Amino acid sequence: MQRRYVALFLSLFFLLPVLAQDRTRTRIPIRIPDVPGYKTLACDLHIHTVFSDGSVWPDIRPEEAWREGMDVIAITDHIEYLPHKADLPANHNRSFEIAKPRGDQLDIIVIRGSEVTRDMPPGHLNAIFLDSSIPLDTEEWFDALKAAHDQGAFIFWNHPGWKGQQPDKVARWYPEHSQLLEQGMLHGIEVVNERQYYPEAHRWCIEKKLTMLSNSDIHNPLNLDYKVRQADHRPMTLVFAQDRSVESVKEALFARRTAVYSGALLIGEETFLKPIFTRSVHIKNPAVTIKGDGRTYVQIRNYSDIEYELEFGDEIVELELPDEILALQANRTVLLALRGTSEDRSGTKTFAIPFTVRNLLVGPDIGLKSEFEIEVTFVPEEE
Amino acid sequence: MQRRYVALFLSLFFLLPVLAQDRTRTRIPIRIPDVPGYKTLACDLHIHTVFSDGSVWPDIRPEEAWREGMDVIAITDHIEYLPHKADLPANHNRSFEIAKPRGDQLDIIVIRGSEVTRDMPPGHLNAIFLDSSIPLDTEEWFDALKAAHDQGAFIFWNHPGWKGQQPDKVARWYPEHSQLLEQGMLHGIEVVNERQYYPEAHRWCIEKKLTMLSNSDIHNPLNLDYKVRQADHRPMTLVFAQDRSVESVKEALFARRTAVYSGALLIGEETFLKPIFTRSVHIKNPAVTIKGDGRTYVQIRNYSDIEYELEFGDEIVELELPDEILALQANRTVLLALRGTSEDRSGTKTFAIPFTVRNLLVGPDIGLKSEFEIEVTFVPEEE
Amino acid sequence: MQRRYVALFLSLFFLLPVLAQDRTRTRIPIRIPDVPGYKTLACDLHIHTVFSDGSVWPDIRPEEAWREGMDVIAITDHIEYLPHKADLPANHNRSFEIAKPRGDQLDIIVIRGSEVTRDMPPGHLNAIFLDSSIPLDTEEWFDALKAAHDQGAFIFWNHPGWKGQQPDKVARWYPEHSQLLEQGMLHGIEVVNERQYYPEAHRWCIEKKLTMLSNSDIHNPLNLDYKVRQADHRPMTLVFAQDRSVESVKEALFARRTAVYSGALLIGEETFLKPIFTRSVHIKNPAVTIKGDGRTYVQIRNYSDIEYELEFGDEIVELELPDEILALQANRTVLLALRGTSEDRSGTKTFAIPFTVRNLLVGPDIGLKSEFEIEVTFVPEEE
Amino acid sequence: MQRRYVALFLSLFFLLPVLAQDRTRTRIPIRIPDVPGYKTLACDLHIHTVFSDGSVWPDIRPEEAWREGMDVIAITDHIEYLPHKADLPANHNRSFEIAKPRGDQLDIIVIRGSEVTRDMPPGHLNAIFLDSSIPLDTEEWFDALKAAHDQGAFIFWNHPGWKGQQPDKVARWYPEHSQLLEQGMLHGIEVVNERQYYPEAHRWCIEKKLTMLSNSDIHNPLNLDYKVRQADHRPMTLVFAQDRSVESVKEALFARRTAVYSGALLIGEETFLKPIFTRSVHIKNPAVTIKGDGRTYVQIRNYSDIEYELEFGDEIVELELPDEILALQANRTVLLALRGTSEDRSGTKTFAIPFTVRNLLVGPDIGLKSEFEIEVTFVPEEE
Repeated sequence: MQRRYVALFLSLFFLLPVLAQDRTRTRIPIRIPDVPGYKTLACDLHIHTVFSDGSVWPDIRPEEAWREGMDVIAITDHIEYLPHKADLPANHNRSFEIAKPRGDQLDIIVIRGSEVTRDMPPGHLNAIFLDSSIPLDTEEWFDALKAAHDQGAFIFWNHPGWKGQQPDKVARWYPEHSQLLEQGMLHGIEVVNERQYYPEAHRWCIEKKLTMLSNSDIHNPLNLDYKVRQADHRPMTLVFAQDRSVESVKEALFARRTAVYSGALLIGEETFLKPIFTRSVHIKNPAVTIKGDGRTYVQIRNYSDIEYELEFGDEIVELELPDEILALQANRTVLLALRGTSEDRSGTKTFAIPFTVRNLLVGPDIGLKSEFEIEVTFVPEEE
Repeated sequence: MQRRYVALFLSLFFLLPVLAQDRTRTRIPIRIPDVPGYKTLACDLHIHTVFSDGSVWPDIRPEEAWREGMDVIAITDHIEYLPHKADLPANHNRSFEIAKPRGDQLDIIVIRGSEVTRDMPPGHLNAIFLDSSIPLDTEEWFDALKAAHDQGAFIFWNHPGWKGQQPDKVARWYPEHSQLLEQGMLHGIEVVNERQYYPEAHRWCIEKKLTMLSNSDIHNPLNLDYKVRQADHRPMTLVFAQDRSVESVKEALFARRTAVYSGALLIGEETFLKPIFTRSVHIKNPAVTIKGDGRTYVQIRNYSDIEYELEFGDEIVELELPDEILALQANRTVLLALRGTSEDRSGTKTFAIPFTVRNLLVGPDIGLKSEFEIEVTFVPEEE
Repeated sequence: MQRRYVALFLSLFFLLPVLAQDRTRTRIPIRIPDVPGYKTLACDLHIHTVFSDGSVWPDIRPEEAWREGMDVIAITDHIEYLPHKADLPANHNRSFEIAKPRGDQLDIIVIRGSEVTRDMPPGHLNAIFLDSSIPLDTEEWFDALKAAHDQGAFIFWNHPGWKGQQPDKVARWYPEHSQLLEQGMLHGIEVVNERQYYPEAHRWCIEKKLTMLSNSDIHNPLNLDYKVRQADHRPMTLVFAQDRSVESVKEALFARRTAVYSGALLIGEETFLKPIFTRSVHIKNPAVTIKGDGRTYVQIRNYSDIEYELEFGDEIVELELPDEILALQANRTVLLALRGTSEDRSGTKTFAIPFTVRNLLVGPDIGLKSEFEIEVTFVPEEE
Repeated sequence: MQRRYVALFLSLFFLLPVLAQDRTRTRIPIRIPDVPGYKTLACDLHIHTVFSDGSVWPDIRPEEAWREGMDVIAITDHIEYLPHKADLPANHNRSFEIAKPRGDQLDIIVIRGSEVTRDMPPGHLNAIFLDSSIPLDTEEWFDALKAAHDQGAFIFWNHPGWKGQQPDKVARWYPEHSQLLEQGMLHGIEVVNERQYYPEAHRWCIEKKLTMLSNSDIHNPLNLDYKVRQADHRPMTLVFAQDRSVESVKEALFARRTAVYSGALLIGEETFLKPIFTRSVHIKNPAVTIKGDGRTYVQIRNYSDIEYELEFGDEIVELELPDEILALQANRTVLLALRGTSEDRSGTKTFAIPFTVRNLLVGPDIGLKSEFEIEVTFVPEEE
């Protein structure tokens, strides 16, 4: 009996980790590579608090963001919709002021913003990088956006296909949006809001050279809507910025250096998606040998948190490629099986094996094209 | 290629579940048996909101409780400590009023309470089942508790060993507590607050016939402090009530029919712990055969969410019992290995195999004793 | 410093569970209701070991089955395909003989079977409930099946659309199968093998009155192919048997009392699927009140491990039903939202709310129809 | 209704990942830094198969190893203990021969070994890097080890405190071990076998300059004993090798460049543990500001899979350090809270904050000492 307790003590002392309460305040870094010349920053630019119709005190937002591995958030309470007003008198600047110090403490960039909340058209628009939200509290929607624009704000159209304003969930472009665009008062659109993707908005961003955004529009405590630590994440705008500062984020947003990251989808220009993909993925054994019509395995490691789903379309005479989707799982290594097509082929040849990454969208229905360079030495079966 | 898509379509259509956003608003029922004559209700009777120093709008509390499988919560904002006062003017009754309708919608019982928040002694005390919190806003602590008592409130002492008031974390009993007790104004103590267990409070509850409580004292969104869906749970008071109603909860609290459930610990009187244990556990094969000094396995299924850790102390002449802790894991079946101690024993005998459930505490250092009745048929090795 | 250690000790002693090594040998019971008159047994009737082309010693199979919560397995090594023969001389009966004692120890029913492994037609067929596998080792495939039939075996066609024998993965019926059927030597078909579902086989079972089966055909250690404890499970045949015995399993298989359970899919006759669904699901509040055109929530608890995906198709004049799939998640409670369609409706009415359970298939493309009975009291908005 | 299906289709197509069956064959790389001049290789040098008393065909071992992120395994079936002999005739070299090709396919180094399995003393010893296992099949234990030694084998003592040979689980050193040591025929000891740590063996390795090993001694399919993908891992020997080759592993083992990694424990010489720790950990903000006696947070990111448990013992006049264990969780960022001890201190000072990493053992009861260099600027409260 005595021995058992000694063993137990040793086990408890050495093998068991510290108590659970110490374990909750941790940050899980997001692993997405930088792109050439820029840092990749994880941003959520549409967030509510109790100061409009959200459910948390503002300092919770940077805390949630820090834990999830984010870099930047914008607090964007509604100007016009204040259901808690009877208890919590309106003060459009307060939620930012309360959130900011916690952001500073945790090195989360907090941006002051507001949501101008009007009927469609023009619907709801966020203005961020404000000096003060108060001038946006106007009678006419145009005056509100003008007041934001006069402060140098970055202005984007929220959830353009939101059921509340588009009963058939299809985003529609109105003359008012053309007007804003022409006057330089519309800079981006949410291609994703919450878990909803708007292909029309995606197309408009490409055609009209607008910045693509993806935001949570979170009202609840984040963990009630997203299983953050369990293979789920909030929708986020990836911003490719010169450095990790408010100014750089602003510059990058106006320069349209963003991508949309939501669920398994990554959406953006090839300029950004291509390097994210190629820097995520490493081929461990780029030179392989195939014996006759046998099989060999190329080991592909994915260093990022994004899973890539590869579809091998074109045929190659000498090689049989997978006829099913190959998922390069996040932070794992998987096997690309290649099979010879002839028993007696010999020699060494380098192939550029083409594929489509079907969850990386460079257009509303266009997957990113890429290829792996693999050197194959063929050895006849008989050897 | 065509075939692949058909297969893919079939797979997506049939094998893949619905979208993630539908999946977040779910309740995970807590599996703890009722005790004879009473329903077991999972209660958290110490909870804060933005209306004192908490971080969520009050209606989030019943939502969190529903999702975690709770039955009852009390909203107990501080009377005296109101750090958000400048933004959110004091109104001691509002947090309950806002929380209640969401509770009604989800069938979560919400109780009106307040935390009287004073220096030690007497420290912090919760009064629950109030008609109004406003009369508790008094100059003297005694008057506040008197005002609660006059409303028929159930009053308990919070976190008696809290570092903020007991720098060495040891709970201390003051004359003021004796005074309250004598005047019928102290009915219970938190034996657990957050993740802290106070053995002194446990002892006082037994000696002075006070109700044992275990509460979260949650300020943050719950999921920031507890990994609710991942083998973690908030500390809770199990209340053994005649039915699922406010009145029954109140009656049970005054009648001291509670247990403390925190982490792996379940604390309370044997009257309650024994039936919870025995009703959780089912022996699948209570009659076994042992051949010589070989081994047999008794299969024990635990139907509850509580893991039971059994320690087999006493020796039995005919049987070798496990010399390590046997964990009856929650919602699983495990094997109790029994070994014969003689090669040539024969005959059938029923044993009451005694053990201690070391994480079920009937006293500060006393595990619950129980036993399994097993019929063993011994067959000599040679047969 | 001293205090810290005391706290640490208490925490370790009380809050921390037992060591990891004790925790691996556990069974996770499968929660699927019985059907009227019969027990629901979880069976996997197609399993390999090192004695043909599998990778584990036979006693591992009952161990894996016990841990996963299964009731019955059949060991069905190939007769003709013995790639380990040079190291492990052929003995068709040995794998069952080695597996059986571990099954007895853990109360897992182990059935003796063999896989007759021939070119298509007739392809691969399993014969189970054999007395000996040796007579099946014949020159002609028909003689092998005849030898099984002479022992009273239950014979079924394996993976009828297996790529190895059906390059386009479409199952094809040959005259040889008609011949077997006519002679009473074909009793069932695998509608699912591994993770592949064969709609043609599903149709044949219905048309030709054959028993539907779903088996793992496992060769690897089970956990290499299935993430057993993480929301994944091996494909299994649910057998509705009079009791938990070999004889009852056999009787039920010949009587076609089975269902196919694979991934999220449950396939079978309405006679079995309907009671499994209705016994799994409990409506907590079948009487609700709707105020005007507001919303109310019906709480639905699913007591089973099967997730049910409900699709509400038909319109009801008085009620707006969900227009998205409602997933009744396994072992959880979810909310069915009902909304009034008129502000001033009043009175009480009972509705049979119809839906399709789209992952419970009573035909290759036919979901199970069911309905919830809900009593709604309408209260006009103004009250 | 139409819209719903479109949405559903889009969701399925874009948001949902590929099918489950594609997902099982993946490798989860182990993240442990290299040490200066050497690669860190994850090795398990004690493994069984069906060719002695194990339960899997030998090619499963490299498959399991690849998936778990290992680099090197040794197949070490017993010479003397062959319980499957009646079915599987003895052939000491076969398990290696079968395992090797799968290892080659997946780039897992497979080493040929054998376990000389004798009564205590000398107990069980592994000999690895053999040319052939057959010469080890001798009458006398010494001759077996001599035959291994003649082949240049690396020989180590297995589980020296194994209950089967040391009923009180205490490792005992016998004259036979001295004899082997003197004759250069004993090169290492298992400090950990399965989940058991032997402090005596740890001490002997330090005193007698023997190589420390940690091995699984796995008999079952690995996943039956270890929850590999769920914060559990097999015990492993970290070998610090010049490159990833059999020769380098051998050279490193003879040169005693190893560490023991088991559960949360990392055991070895400071030369190796120190760089593993310092290369794992990165301080994001090494210069912080403290206002008065307020708090500041240093963000510490742990890039490795090893959790480090820091204990801050010594006091610093100017800073209050955490009085609880700080766990640097694997692959996460945590906060080190520092508090000022005076309201009116000013100036900037660099501190070497000392701590013990209590789960990194440089001796049986000695944690690794290390320190963080932090520059603190003190600002008086009033500023």
